[in-house]
Amino acid sequence: MSENKEKTLESLGEFGLIEHLTNSIEIKNGSTIKGVGDDAAVLDYKDKQTIVTTDLLLQGIHFDLVYTPIVHLGYKAVMVNLSDVYAMNATPKQITVSIGVSSKVSLPIVEQLYDGIKLACNKHNVDLIGGDTSTSLTGLTISITAIGEANKEDIVYRSGAKPNDLICVSGDLGAAYMGLQLLEREKRVHQGNTEIQPDLSGYDYILERQLKPEARKDVIEFLKTIGVKPTAMIDISDGLSSEIMHICKQSNTGCRIYENKIPIDHATSLFAEEINMNPTVAALNGGEDYELLFTISIEDYAKFNQETDIKIYTIGHITDESKGQYLVTNGDEEVELQAQGWNAVQ
Amino acid sequence: MSENKEKTLESLGEFGLIEHLTNSIEIKNGSTIKGVGDDAAVLDYKDKQTIVTTDLLLQGIHFDLVYTPIVHLGYKAVMVNLSDVYAMNATPKQITVSIGVSSKVSLPIVEQLYDGIKLACNKHNVDLIGGDTSTSLTGLTISITAIGEANKEDIVYRSGAKPNDLICVSGDLGAAYMGLQLLEREKRVHQGNTEIQPDLSGYDYILERQLKPEARKDVIEFLKTIGVKPTAMIDISDGLSSEIMHICKQSNTGCRIYENKIPIDHATSLFAEEINMNPTVAALNGGEDYELLFTISIEDYAKFNQETDIKIYTIGHITDESKGQYLVTNGDEEVELQAQGWNAVQ
Repeated sequence: MSENKEKTLESLGEFGLIEHLTNSIEIKNGSTIKGVGDDAAVLDYKDKQTIVTTDLLLQGIHFDLVYTPIVHLGYKAVMVNLSDVYAMNATPKQITVSIGVSSKVSLPIVEQLYDGIKLACNKHNVDLIGGDTSTSLTGLTISITAIGEANKEDIVYRSGAKPNDLICVSGDLGAAYMGLQLLEREKRVHQGNTEIQPDLSGYDYILERQLKPEARKDVIEFLKTIGVKPTAMIDISDGLSSEIMHICKQSNTGCRIYENKIPIDHATSLFAEEINMNPTVAALNGGEDYELLFTISIEDYAKFNQETDIKIYTIGHITDESKGQYLVTNGDEEVELQAQGWNAVQ
Repeated sequence: MSENKEKTLESLGEFGLIEHLTNSIEIKNGSTIKGVGDDAAVLDYKDKQTIVTTDLLLQGIHFDLVYTPIVHLGYKAVMVNLSDVYAMNATPKQITVSIGVSSKVSLPIVEQLYDGIKLACNKHNVDLIGGDTSTSLTGLTISITAIGEANKEDIVYRSGAKPNDLICVSGDLGAAYMGLQLLEREKRVHQGNTEIQPDLSGYDYILERQLKPEARKDVIEFLKTIGVKPTAMIDISDGLSSEIMHICKQSNTGCRIYENKIPIDHATSLFAEEINMNPTVAALNGGEDYELLFTISIEDYAKFNQETDIKIYTIGHITDESKGQYLVTNGDEEVELQAQGWNAVQ
């Protein structure tokens, strides 16, 4: 990485850095009255409801700079938040970005981070309206808050699932986790040897799923087009298992998920085999797929017969609460689902 | 600190911790449709404009757990954000809180942090609506976003100051920085000696200003009462010098600040003398006072003749841009103001 000779984090300072990073930002949304540059941003929502979500990304926990291209990190940090807004069946409109950077982080690194952030904003038509930059003793910290809007009647909560509703997912699962396993493996192999470049060829799909996830704006738009409003919805950040349990808990229901219905890409299965792992476990507990998991009333099922490139998979159904939350395995056994989070027992 | 025997961060896990920390939260604002517990919070603003601000607090940079009571830290983390909302002449309504905690941080520490956060919310009638909790490799990270509302015509930006406007500040300056110097001094003295408790008696005022600042809701309300809308406003987080320069830059003006008009508390002057420091330097560059700095048109000056406990000091005036931004010292010299940030050259 080449050092920028003229400008450094030190020479720019806090205010200079903010200006440097934000002076090319163009406002895209009418609801953005005032963005970066005052004590706070000002938004105007007339007859819409406002959606707010936030995520904190910490070096060494959520990303490893050894193998994460920094521009992808910026992109992903935004996607993680936009995904939460889409999971409310809402449209993201603004984000704020706070970063903490240690003295080891150079200006080009921060610029690339913002390049990724701006790329994500442009793709999803979102305004970057403010934030905070700070020195840090230890590595890179990124905190993003996303704000969106929706008509009151369109918002989908986690709590609306009803017995007999079908459980759907918007794409294949487990690939992001397999990508992480691959990156971790290559890191271990090459540890201490900076000469050898990791060999990641042929693993494009699982790497892209890990490094450059895409929030499913297209799915939300497709559901609107075919006139389906999910009864409950959540995005898959922690793994299918804990996400469906969130829906069940907040909807006071049980569920049955069928192992043979869980969509798993061929590349995911191949790498899972290579490292001797059950791909279903990656789908259930891996997380970071950022697909949408939602429930629909059975009457809406026929509406999915329209031609589209968007793949929606039906993987199970909602039951009465008393039936519990279970995976029905390929061997027709019922295994109780386990919640995951950062207490991961797997 | 006593260890909670029944519950630990490990036994609670991410979802358990979120529930544990947020289950006692009562919604206070009608605009809060949905708080903690979904992918995102949902807010409803009818004919108001929405204000958003965010701040990141990092251990070792913004706070030192050696001498910061953790409940105060939670309180201050909220105040820092509310202060930004008040600085827009707006009313804070909601906050989101993201925290990263390392394995060294115990559950009682996190609970105390939330006690402080909730105390601040209660005092300012603000709803805690969401956030993110995460493990961290290194210490404690706190990221808070505050959301507020205001009528469009009430919002005060940094950009509205005009030549001949008076520059006002809502309380005394430099005390928070003196409190920090005191705490740092005591830390050095007692380093490696945990038996001796630091002697902080008699320094209550500067310690409180550092550890438990209060966002100036009362000032905003007072200004409304007397019918004054500032032409520009900002809160003093980085020091008087850089704050007035922000106003001047965005308003395309110059300014004159008079050293002998800068409000400095007796306790601040005493401790400054003790450590051989010029208290004016603390006021100009110290920061963390969280007072409001604002400009008013000269016609509004007479309106401040009402009886009130709130002290507003007039410390200078706005000039044409060509006159530059200067401090007029007690010796009647003009010294050009310097911006501060985390590149502090002082």
